[in-house]
Amino acid sequence: MPSRSREDRMAIDFTLEPELAELADRTAEFVRTTVLPAEAEMLRGPGKPDDSLRHTLQRAAREAGVFAPTVPKHLGGLGLDLRGQSVILEEAGRSLLGPLALHCAAPDEGNMLLLEKVADAAQRDRFLKPLATGQVRSCFAMTEPAPGAGSDPSQLATVARRTSGGWVLDGRKWFITGADGAAFAIVMARTGTAAEPAATMFLVPADTPGFRVVRHIPSLDQGFTGGHCEIELDGCEAGEDAVLGEVDRGFAYAQVRLAPARLTHCMRWLGLARHAHDLALGYAAERTAFGSRLGELGMVQQQLADNEIDIAASRALIREAAWVLDQGRSGKHESSVAKTFTAEAVGRIVDRAIQVCGALGISGDLPLSAYLREVRPFRIYDGPSETHRWSIARRALRAAAAKEPKPEGAEGMKEPQR
Amino acid sequence: MPSRSREDRMAIDFTLEPELAELADRTAEFVRTTVLPAEAEMLRGPGKPDDSLRHTLQRAAREAGVFAPTVPKHLGGLGLDLRGQSVILEEAGRSLLGPLALHCAAPDEGNMLLLEKVADAAQRDRFLKPLATGQVRSCFAMTEPAPGAGSDPSQLATVARRTSGGWVLDGRKWFITGADGAAFAIVMARTGTAAEPAATMFLVPADTPGFRVVRHIPSLDQGFTGGHCEIELDGCEAGEDAVLGEVDRGFAYAQVRLAPARLTHCMRWLGLARHAHDLALGYAAERTAFGSRLGELGMVQQQLADNEIDIAASRALIREAAWVLDQGRSGKHESSVAKTFTAEAVGRIVDRAIQVCGALGISGDLPLSAYLREVRPFRIYDGPSETHRWSIARRALRAAAAKEPKPEGAEGMKEPQR
Amino acid sequence: MPSRSREDRMAIDFTLEPELAELADRTAEFVRTTVLPAEAEMLRGPGKPDDSLRHTLQRAAREAGVFAPTVPKHLGGLGLDLRGQSVILEEAGRSLLGPLALHCAAPDEGNMLLLEKVADAAQRDRFLKPLATGQVRSCFAMTEPAPGAGSDPSQLATVARRTSGGWVLDGRKWFITGADGAAFAIVMARTGTAAEPAATMFLVPADTPGFRVVRHIPSLDQGFTGGHCEIELDGCEAGEDAVLGEVDRGFAYAQVRLAPARLTHCMRWLGLARHAHDLALGYAAERTAFGSRLGELGMVQQQLADNEIDIAASRALIREAAWVLDQGRSGKHESSVAKTFTAEAVGRIVDRAIQVCGALGISGDLPLSAYLREVRPFRIYDGPSETHRWSIARRALRAAAAKEPKPEGAEGMKEPQR
Amino acid sequence: MPSRSREDRMAIDFTLEPELAELADRTAEFVRTTVLPAEAEMLRGPGKPDDSLRHTLQRAAREAGVFAPTVPKHLGGLGLDLRGQSVILEEAGRSLLGPLALHCAAPDEGNMLLLEKVADAAQRDRFLKPLATGQVRSCFAMTEPAPGAGSDPSQLATVARRTSGGWVLDGRKWFITGADGAAFAIVMARTGTAAEPAATMFLVPADTPGFRVVRHIPSLDQGFTGGHCEIELDGCEAGEDAVLGEVDRGFAYAQVRLAPARLTHCMRWLGLARHAHDLALGYAAERTAFGSRLGELGMVQQQLADNEIDIAASRALIREAAWVLDQGRSGKHESSVAKTFTAEAVGRIVDRAIQVCGALGISGDLPLSAYLREVRPFRIYDGPSETHRWSIARRALRAAAAKEPKPEGAEGMKEPQR
Repeated sequence: MPSRSREDRMAIDFTLEPELAELADRTAEFVRTTVLPAEAEMLRGPGKPDDSLRHTLQRAAREAGVFAPTVPKHLGGLGLDLRGQSVILEEAGRSLLGPLALHCAAPDEGNMLLLEKVADAAQRDRFLKPLATGQVRSCFAMTEPAPGAGSDPSQLATVARRTSGGWVLDGRKWFITGADGAAFAIVMARTGTAAEPAATMFLVPADTPGFRVVRHIPSLDQGFTGGHCEIELDGCEAGEDAVLGEVDRGFAYAQVRLAPARLTHCMRWLGLARHAHDLALGYAAERTAFGSRLGELGMVQQQLADNEIDIAASRALIREAAWVLDQGRSGKHESSVAKTFTAEAVGRIVDRAIQVCGALGISGDLPLSAYLREVRPFRIYDGPSETHRWSIARRALRAAAAKEPKPEGAEGMKEPQR
Repeated sequence: MPSRSREDRMAIDFTLEPELAELADRTAEFVRTTVLPAEAEMLRGPGKPDDSLRHTLQRAAREAGVFAPTVPKHLGGLGLDLRGQSVILEEAGRSLLGPLALHCAAPDEGNMLLLEKVADAAQRDRFLKPLATGQVRSCFAMTEPAPGAGSDPSQLATVARRTSGGWVLDGRKWFITGADGAAFAIVMARTGTAAEPAATMFLVPADTPGFRVVRHIPSLDQGFTGGHCEIELDGCEAGEDAVLGEVDRGFAYAQVRLAPARLTHCMRWLGLARHAHDLALGYAAERTAFGSRLGELGMVQQQLADNEIDIAASRALIREAAWVLDQGRSGKHESSVAKTFTAEAVGRIVDRAIQVCGALGISGDLPLSAYLREVRPFRIYDGPSETHRWSIARRALRAAAAKEPKPEGAEGMKEPQR
Repeated sequence: MPSRSREDRMAIDFTLEPELAELADRTAEFVRTTVLPAEAEMLRGPGKPDDSLRHTLQRAAREAGVFAPTVPKHLGGLGLDLRGQSVILEEAGRSLLGPLALHCAAPDEGNMLLLEKVADAAQRDRFLKPLATGQVRSCFAMTEPAPGAGSDPSQLATVARRTSGGWVLDGRKWFITGADGAAFAIVMARTGTAAEPAATMFLVPADTPGFRVVRHIPSLDQGFTGGHCEIELDGCEAGEDAVLGEVDRGFAYAQVRLAPARLTHCMRWLGLARHAHDLALGYAAERTAFGSRLGELGMVQQQLADNEIDIAASRALIREAAWVLDQGRSGKHESSVAKTFTAEAVGRIVDRAIQVCGALGISGDLPLSAYLREVRPFRIYDGPSETHRWSIARRALRAAAAKEPKPEGAEGMKEPQR
Repeated sequence: MPSRSREDRMAIDFTLEPELAELADRTAEFVRTTVLPAEAEMLRGPGKPDDSLRHTLQRAAREAGVFAPTVPKHLGGLGLDLRGQSVILEEAGRSLLGPLALHCAAPDEGNMLLLEKVADAAQRDRFLKPLATGQVRSCFAMTEPAPGAGSDPSQLATVARRTSGGWVLDGRKWFITGADGAAFAIVMARTGTAAEPAATMFLVPADTPGFRVVRHIPSLDQGFTGGHCEIELDGCEAGEDAVLGEVDRGFAYAQVRLAPARLTHCMRWLGLARHAHDLALGYAAERTAFGSRLGELGMVQQQLADNEIDIAASRALIREAAWVLDQGRSGKHESSVAKTFTAEAVGRIVDRAIQVCGALGISGDLPLSAYLREVRPFRIYDGPSETHRWSIARRALRAAAAKEPKPEGAEGMKEPQR
C-alpha cells in the first residue's frame, strides 16, 4: 500500500539488528551442541550442577564468544542492554545449564547489576571484578524464615547494630540461592528506628566469623549451583567499607536490582519453556495413537497452539518491559505484568508439553519433568504472583483515581425509565 | 549503566512518534466527549446504531480531524499503517460507536483495504471512492449457512456460472454484517471445477435483480449498522467488470483482507475491553463492602490485575503482528496468535469488569452488559478460536519438522540404568 | 464379587425412587412439548415473559400434573423435599419458562418457603395461599443501591420507624426481581439500634401508599416476569400485623430462605445448561467442517466432554447439599460450595455450547444467546462468587484451627541437613 | 416443613453407616500417628519406599485393624464395596504411604480385584492368596514404549505365540509400576489374528527365563514401591495354566480392572490433595504478611475456597461413580468423568497449597513438593485426560443421536423477520 507513507518514520519496531541476531544464532548453536548434552549427563547423574561443571561450561562459552552477555564491556562482558538480553537470555535458557554457562544466571547476574550501579571503586575491585569473570559466585541474602521478611519486606528481622568500628549483624536468612560456595553475600539488614524503619545492604565475605551456611533447604527445583540455603548471622562483624551504597537505603537499592532481575528470570524461563514446547512438537510429529499422528489430534493441537500463544505473549511482554527499563524508566508495572504472566505461562507450557508426551513426558527419558520442577517455583520466587497482582491492581486504581473523575458513559443513564 | 553502549542502535522499540501520540489523545478526547454520550443515548433507546447516527458521528469525527485513520491519504484518510492503526483504533474502540464514527469499523474498513489492493481503476472510482468518504456502506458476503462455507471456506456452495455477457450467481449467504443498507456487496462464489476448485470475488450493487437481503438474523451482538443478514442470490447477474481482480483468485484475495482485518478487530475490541476495565476501576475505587473499598479486597484486586495483564499482553501481541504485516510479510501466524489471544482476553476482561461491578454491572446503568454481548461473538467471528488454534499448531508442527530432526537432549538418555 | 457383603447396608445411594423418576419423565415431556415451543415464540417476539403467558403455562402444568413441586401438599403442591426438587427443577429448568410454568421460579419459590416457615396463620391465609396457587406474584425486597445493602447486608439503609399504630418504612430497594406486578413485597428494613443493629421483615401489599416501583432496571437477563425493579419506600406505613415473624429477626429469617433458594437456583440453571449442551451435541453430530463431522474434531470433543463433566459435578454437589438440608442441618457450607461451582459451571457450559455452534450459536436461530444472557448474572445473584469464596475459606480456616493444632508430617523435617 | 412427607422414602442418601464412619476415624488416626511420621522420615531420606518399609507399615496396619480394606473377607480383608472404599481410601491417601500401609495401593489393589474376578482356583491359590496378605507384590504389564500400546491399546505389540506345550511371549513393556521386586506379572499380549485382533492375559512369575526387568525408568513420581520399570520378554515361556481367564479375552478383562482401578486411584489422590489443603490452611492461619494473617487476604482465601470446592466436587463424583459400579453397572462413563475431573482437581489443589505456602511450599520442609511430583502423572496414568474426554464426548454424542432427533426449540425460529 504505497500510500501509507509514514512507515519509515514509525517507531514501533521489533527488528533485531544483525549483530544481535548473529549472536542469538551463535548462542543457540552453543546451547544445542555443548550445553544440552551436559544437561542430559547431569540429569542422568547427580541431578544438580556443581562448580566444576560451571567452570567447564563457562570456559566453553568464553571460547564460543557468548560469555557474559549482561556484563558491561569494560568488565569483559558483551554489554547488552535489556532488549538485547531478552534475545540472548531466552536462547541461553533453553537448557537448565545455559544461563550458568553464559554466566547470566541468578543470583550472580542481578548482583553484578547491583554492584555496577551502587558499589564504590574499592568494592568493585574486590567483589565485582572476580564475580564478573566467573571466578567466584555470590548470593543475595534478603529473604527470611517466618515471621521475617518473605514476600513482605517490611517484616525484615535481621538487625545491623552500629559498633565503634562498624556493624554487627544478627539474624537468619532463608532460601538464599547459591549461598553454599559463594565467595560473599549481599546481606539486607534492618538499620532504621522503629519510627523510621530502614534497611542497609552489607557486603559480607563468606569466611567472616559469625556468617554460617546452616543447611541446604531441600527444594523442588535443583538447578541452582550452591542450592537454596539457610544462613545464620550470629554476631557477624562488618566494617564501614562493607556498607553497599549508603546506610538506610537498602530498600531503594533492592528496587534497582528487582525489576531487571525479574525480567532476566522471565527471559531464561521462557527459553526453557520453548525447549519443552519443541520437545512436545517433535514427539507429536512422530508418535501415533488411534490411527493418527498425535499432532493431528485436536486436543493435542490445542495444547501446542496454546503453547505458541503463551510463548508469543510472554516474549512480547518481556521485550516491552525491557524497552521501558532501557529508557531509564522504573518499569515496575511493566516488569510486574511481564513476570506474573510469564511465570504462569511458563508453568502452563511445560505442563502441556508433558501432557502431550504422556508417560514419556514424566519419565527421565526426556528432561521435561526436570523442567517442571525448575519452573514451578518461579510463580513464588521474585515475588509471588499474588503480591505482583496486588501491586498491579493498586497501581491501576491509583492511576484511575488520578485520571478519571467518573466513569464515562455511565452518567445520564440512571434516570427512571417508566 | 553507561557501558551498555548498544542502546542507541538497538531496534526493538515501542516509542510512539509525537504526531501519533497527539492523534491518539485527540481521538480519546473525541470519544470521551462526543461518542460515549451518543453510545449512552443509543443504549437507552434503540440499542443499535442506524445510518443517521452514523452520518452525524462521522461528520463530527471529520471536524475533530480523526476521520478515516485507515484510509490512504489520497482518498482523504489519515493513511496510517497498521502500527499506527493499533494505537488509534484502540482509542476509537473505547466506545461501541467509536469505530463507526471514525469510519474504521468492520466490514467497511476491511473492504476498503481489499479494494485499494485489488480493484481496477474503474472499480475504485465506482465503489471505493464513495465508500472511503463514508457516503455509502458495503458488505462482504462470504459465509454461508450449513452445509456451506462456515469456518471451512472449502465448503463454499454459492456458484457463479459464466454466461455470454458475464456471470450468474446463485446461492445463499448468511451472517453478512452490514448487508441491510449496504450499497454493494463483495460476493465470494465458486468458479473452479470439481477437479480444481476455485473461487472468484464479485462486486454486486445491492439493487441488482436477484440480490436480496432476506432477513436480519437476530444476534447476541447489536453494534453493527445494518445488522447481520441472510442474503439470497437467485439468478443474480454480474458483468465481467464485476469481477474483483482475477477470476479464480478469490481465496487468495480473501487472505489479503483476512490478516489485517483480524488485527483491526483486535484493536477495536481491546479498546472496548479497556473501557470496561476503566469502569470497573472507577467502581472498585468508590464502592464499599464489608468495611473496605472494593478495590482493597484481594479477590477484586486479582480481577483488576488480571485485566491489566490481559490488556498489556493483547496490545503487545497486536503491535508485534502489526509490525510484521507492515514489513510486507504475511503475518498469518502472528495475526492468528494475536486474534486468538485477544478475542479470549477481551471476553475475560469484560466479564471480570461485570463481576467487579456486581448487579450494577449486569444492569443497563452501565454499558458493560452491552459490551459483553458485543465481544462474545469475537471468539467466533473472523475464524473461531478452534480454527485458529488448528492452524497455529499445524504451522508449528511443520516448522518443527523442517528445522529439528530430533529432540535435543533426549538422545543418550535412554540407555538402561540398572 | 459376592464376598463384598456390606453392599446391602451401605447408605450412600443415588437411586431415584420410581415415583420421582416418573414425575421427572413427565416434567421432561411437558417441557419438551409445551414449554419449549412457548419459549421459542417468546424469544421471537417480546423476549420476556408476562403474566398472561405465566397463567397459560401454569394452567397447562396443572393439567399435566407437574404444578408446584416445591409447594407443600396441604397447599396444593407436590410437596417434594430438596432432593426431589433437585431432580424435578433441573428438568423444569431446561427451558427459561419451565420454572415459571411449574411455579417453582424465583422469587416466589423462595418466598413461599419463607412464609411457610415463618408467617402466622393470618399472614398465611392472606399472602401465602394466593401465592401458592399462582394467583398472584410476590417479591423479596432486600438489596439496595450503593451505598446500601448489596453483597454485604450489614450496609442495610432502609429504615423502619415505630409509630403509634405500627411502622413507617423509608428507603430505596434495587434489583428487586418480579416487583412490577407483584401483589406484595417482603421488605427488609433496619430496626435495631446503632449499638445493636438488627433488621425486620415486613409484608407490604403493593398498593400501600408510599410503596412505589420506580423503574425497571434494564438488565442483561430478561427471563423474570416483572423484571428487576427499583422500589421507593417513602413514608410507607405498615401495621403490626405486617411484621413477618418477630421484630429484629430479619437477618435470621433471611438465612432460612437463603440456603435452599440458592440451591433451587442451581437446579434450574443446571437444567438450562443441560439444554444448551444438548443443542450443542445435536449440532456437533450433524454439522461438518474440514471433512469431518464437528463431533469428530478433538477441540469440539473437548468442549463437549467438559460440559459433561461440569454437569455431572454440579449435579452431584447440588444433590449432596440438598441431602444435607433435608437432614435439617444448616447446609450453609455445602450450598455455598454448590452455588459457587454451579454458577460458574453453568456459565462455562452455555459458553461452550455457543462456541461449538459457531455463528448459529450467537444467532437467535438457537436460544443459546438468550441462555447466555440469563445465566451470566447467576455468578452475582444470591451472593457473588467472591462472597461465597470468602465464607467458604473462612469456614475452612476456622474448622482447621479448631481441629488441627499443627501440620502433620511437617514436624521433625526442619533440622539441618549438612 | 412437616408436609414434605416423602423424605423418609427418598433414596438419595449420603449417610455413612456408623461402622464405616468408625473405620474411617480409625484409619485417619492410624495415618496421622503412624504413617505420616514414616513418610516424613522417608522424604528426609531415600525419597522412595522399599519392601522393608512396606512390611513394617502393613504389620502396623494389621494391628490397627485397618489392613486390606478392598480385599474380600474370605481372603482376610475388610471386604468393603467401592462406596466404602471411597471413604477409607481417601483417608489412607492422606499420606503417600497410606495406601501402601493399608495394602490398597496400585497396582496390587487392581490386580487382586482382577484375579478375584477372573482367576481359576489354582491361580487364586498360587497368585492371589500370597498377594492378598501382602506377602508378595505384583505388576500389571500392559503399556509399551512407542510405537506400541500407550493410551491406545490397539497398538499392542507384544506377541504370544502358541507352542506345543503352551505359549512363548516376546515384546517390551514400559512404565510397569512395581515391576522390580514383584513376584509375578500379569502380561497382556497379542493373540488374535490380523483379521481378528485380540489379546490374552498371562500370569508370569518374575523368575521365568526370558522375563527381565531391564531398568527403572526415572520418573517425576517416586511413591511406588518397585518403581516404574521397563520389561523385556524374550522367548519367555508360559504354560496353558498361565492364561488368565480365557484366551483372546484380554481386552475385556482389562475393562474389568479399569473402571474400579481408576476410581480407587481417585480416592487415594483425593486424600493426598486434602492433606495438602490442610497444610495450606494451617499455614494460612498462622503466617502473616502485609499486616494480616495470610488467611485474611482475599487472593489466599480464593485459593483455599477453590480447594474446598474441588475437594467437594471430586468426592461427590467419586461416590456417585462408586455407587454406579456397586450396582453392577459398567460405570465407564461415570468413572471416566470422575477420573478426569479428580486428576485435574487434585493437581490444582496441591499446586494452590504450594502457592499459599510460598517458598516453604516448594521446600522439603513440607511434603507438598513431593506431593506435587506424585500427583502430576495422575493426569496421564490410567488414561490421559485427553483419552477420557474423547470417550466421554463420543458417548454423549451417541446418546444424543439415539435420543434426540433434533434440537428442541430451534425449529420454527428460522423464518425471515423482515
